[in-house]
Amino acid sequence: MKTFSIQPIGVIRSEIKKREDAPRFYTDKGAPNASVEILPKYIDGLERMRVGDEIVLITWLHRARRDVLKVHPQGKRSNPLTGVFSTRSPDRPNPLGLHRVKVLGIHENRLDIGPIETIDGTPVLDIKPVVESKDY
Amino acid sequence: MKTFSIQPIGVIRSEIKKREDAPRFYTDKGAPNASVEILPKYIDGLERMRVGDEIVLITWLHRARRDVLKVHPQGKRSNPLTGVFSTRSPDRPNPLGLHRVKVLGIHENRLDIGPIETIDGTPVLDIKPVVESKDY
Repeated sequence: MKTFSIQPIGVIRSEIKKREDAPRFYTDKGAPNASVEILPKYIDGLERMRVGDEIVLITWLHRARRDVLKVHPQGKRSNPLTGVFSTRSPDRPNPLGLHRVKVLGIHENRLDIGPIETIDGTPVLDIKPVVESKDY
Repeated sequence: MKTFSIQPIGVIRSEIKKREDAPRFYTDKGAPNASVEILPKYIDGLERMRVGDEIVLITWLHRARRDVLKVHPQGKRSNPLTGVFSTRSPDRPNPLGLHRVKVLGIHENRLDIGPIETIDGTPVLDIKPVVESKDY
């Protein structure tokens, strides 16, 4: 099947610098706020976004492994091996991250958002509004 | 910034054959059930998925335009021009689709799912479980 080429629209700037320091997705505690630096050519795509909006970021988890199809969920050996499509493991064939966050500030090409557990330098591929009745 | 290469893990099989026939995302009416054909090499990633699970599909909206940054939401001229990152328009720099669906059946490499408004032949990039407390 055809392969697609994706170019990031921006990048995460976070105090979390290493994968080992990132809180797990299922943990509510400890995920800090962060920013998205939007590439200048995509700034028009932010028109009418407002502080307080709930959005979904789709990221490229650039430190993940792409050759993994089963994992022990949440890294616990006591959890039975599970297909990655039934887990939120970052390790998966296409390491896409899905993050529901709140818009905390908008400054030209920088969106302040959070809380989010991704590491500094994570490419951002898309931003969508949350639609409560449908997704979410 | 670096470009990434994405290889689909599967493809949507739907009775909807053309973009013009697809119901809009915000419309609840008319989205049919459909199937995902998973490529054989990724079947292990389905381990422990169950009928009744709520999942999120991330798709590649292959008929979308990638050169659009502002749209009239829901295609209505009366809606003011809005940045695509504040809309669910398929037209956007990286045309990723996000679809919350229910698993209706699992047959080797075919997942029956729905309801979903994507057209037949839409590549599927990733599948994740819905995590109510977090996303969704």
